[in-house]
Amino acid sequence: MNLILLRPEETGTSDGSATVRLTGRRLEHLNKVLKAEVGDSVRVGILGGLMGRGEIVAISRREAVLAVRLDSPPPPRLPLSLILALPRPIMLKRVLAQAAALGVQHLFLINARRVEKSFFAASPVREGDFSPYLENGLEQAMDTVAPTVSVHPRFSPFVEDVLPGLAGRARLLAHPLAEARPLAELVPRPPLTGPLLLAIGPEGGWQGHEVVSLGQAGFVVFSLGPRILRVDTAVPALIAQIGLLLGRG
Amino acid sequence: MNLILLRPEETGTSDGSATVRLTGRRLEHLNKVLKAEVGDSVRVGILGGLMGRGEIVAISRREAVLAVRLDSPPPPRLPLSLILALPRPIMLKRVLAQAAALGVQHLFLINARRVEKSFFAASPVREGDFSPYLENGLEQAMDTVAPTVSVHPRFSPFVEDVLPGLAGRARLLAHPLAEARPLAELVPRPPLTGPLLLAIGPEGGWQGHEVVSLGQAGFVVFSLGPRILRVDTAVPALIAQIGLLLGRG
Repeated sequence: MNLILLRPEETGTSDGSATVRLTGRRLEHLNKVLKAEVGDSVRVGILGGLMGRGEIVAISRREAVLAVRLDSPPPPRLPLSLILALPRPIMLKRVLAQAAALGVQHLFLINARRVEKSFFAASPVREGDFSPYLENGLEQAMDTVAPTVSVHPRFSPFVEDVLPGLAGRARLLAHPLAEARPLAELVPRPPLTGPLLLAIGPEGGWQGHEVVSLGQAGFVVFSLGPRILRVDTAVPALIAQIGLLLGRG
Repeated sequence: MNLILLRPEETGTSDGSATVRLTGRRLEHLNKVLKAEVGDSVRVGILGGLMGRGEIVAISRREAVLAVRLDSPPPPRLPLSLILALPRPIMLKRVLAQAAALGVQHLFLINARRVEKSFFAASPVREGDFSPYLENGLEQAMDTVAPTVSVHPRFSPFVEDVLPGLAGRARLLAHPLAEARPLAELVPRPPLTGPLLLAIGPEGGWQGHEVVSLGQAGFVVFSLGPRILRVDTAVPALIAQIGLLLGRG
């Protein structure tokens, strides 16, 4: 936790100064990890808003009181949205944190033939609440703006109804087609420009008709090379490469 | 497990054909995940050697017999070695698998001021056996050659005695110095050439004197930007960016 996230309703302000009272997980972090004392200053940020510092005015086992001053914007986000075949729950939780930490704008969790049906019935998709995992990534990366997340349990309606509404974007599909070129060759230099859509398949890969559908929706296929990466390795690897090609890395 | 790893002593050959008997974890994968039957063919590779296919000749709950034919080399590796401030055990296990999956040549696990002493006393560093985690990465990525790993419990002897023996390599240090430029600007195009050394610090970052020491050892500092990434996100992100700059991505 490199940044303590506050909710707008806790501060009564989206900028300027405020007094905030913390309990629970954030208090425990102050006491046990930071061993914070009165007068110490810690990094804080308002979810969806500004970042700044919080000075510890009082701290006990029951509560901490912080005088916060918010004066700086969160880091810029990548002009990139991620389309991800829904991974198994343990991977999904990691990827949500990674996508938030890396500054992705929107995450589309979609179905594909090789996605197990049970993944849609499992937590956190069942509850529809991804915020604990996203906020974990924001706290790590020192950001306040999480990706928005949508769930699409049917592949074809997503491709036919949702993708056209995202028209005009550069679209990249990671898939080991024999004729696919590596990303380094595919993308024109000088830098790529956003907004971009990146699609990453399930364990076992996209099926042929899925590649055809996404190709018809404007996706260009590129190859990651002969190595098959686990989704929690492929996501940061590909986002970082695209960041570099956007001139951000 | 996209590839079943065999040991050279199991085949009695480092190339050509052989008959192999599998029990334990690999048998369980054949039975439970692949639901393999006689006549099926699976991907196999000899640790440190060739890859190919194995045809199931017989299979039961107790044993599988495979007729293997080995005819293709493992994927090329990156001309990149990684210097990593020893992370906490759960992260180390993930990073070992990631480094193997991404084709890193050598992994130097070093000490730094902000590395907790207990990490060196914890498994798997205490036992000195990293192979289960490395092989997990190879099985995922379909490779047979793991990074070599060395452990350096003292920072200064590593910098003074080990680094000079690795002379002539391009050296990159991830650290948020105010004047540090992003990787995209730092590295000359057309492509970077190897061999390369990449150093990634501990949670909380390198200390000032460590940055100075590594600078004297020829490391150029670059900035990842304002986002602080967890080591299991930073490692694939940076390796993938370097792969792209090497023309491999």
